[in-house]
Amino acid sequence: MCELCDRTGGELLWQGERCRVVYVEEPGYPGFCRVVWEAHVKEMTDLSEDDRLHFMEVVFAVESVLREQLAPEKINLASLGNLVPHIHWHVIPRYCDDPHYPQPIWAKAQRAAGDARTHPSTAALASAIAAALD
Amino acid sequence: MCELCDRTGGELLWQGERCRVVYVEEPGYPGFCRVVWEAHVKEMTDLSEDDRLHFMEVVFAVESVLREQLAPEKINLASLGNLVPHIHWHVIPRYCDDPHYPQPIWAKAQRAAGDARTHPSTAALASAIAAALD
Repeated sequence: MCELCDRTGGELLWQGERCRVVYVEEPGYPGFCRVVWEAHVKEMTDLSEDDRLHFMEVVFAVESVLREQLAPEKINLASLGNLVPHIHWHVIPRYCDDPHYPQPIWAKAQRAAGDARTHPSTAALASAIAAALD
Repeated sequence: MCELCDRTGGELLWQGERCRVVYVEEPGYPGFCRVVWEAHVKEMTDLSEDDRLHFMEVVFAVESVLREQLAPEKINLASLGNLVPHIHWHVIPRYCDDPHYPQPIWAKAQRAAGDARTHPSTAALASAIAAALD
């Protein structure tokens, strides 16, 4: 039983043969995406070099699209997987007024989630990711 | 003024032309390393593709060495840089009894740092990283 084997893990933005990009609807974090490997693999170094480079190419394509469309203060990238050991990358646009800035999003919140920023169009994100990768 | 331009950021384990690997002496986190880009660059997608791939190759070499030498429960990888916008990767071996497990190390601590695990030999880490990369 693995939640990333059983479910997409968010709204599907892009589906490749080896990995997928999903949108994470997290309050205070417009643009938060995850890149999820299709196979149930635990660590980046369990993948072949070719798979690993492909995975990172997709992560960086998502970073580029988020920077172009949302112009965040910073991008945070993380592959943790302590709770769900099925490899996935968090790609998180950060803003100076987001709930945890400048701390990581897993730290104690610094302020309430504002409503100044709305979630971007997932159709526009999906279209730009497809243009970068397909 | 940037602390990663001015200082190594830890004990130097490996020095390449474009990036370096340093050891982070963090209580409760034996084996915690950082890979630091030499130039003051903010985001992965500010680098050329060749630089980006080289950077990740070094990150994954460090992950491999830490897995071989320490056999952690999980590896956590993160590039945040909200406080120090000079690109660097955290490569963090995680254990079921570490202070924050299974939460990210930036979350609220779950328990005190035990003394069951000591810091590994940085000479042994440096030697294995050099063997992988040089």
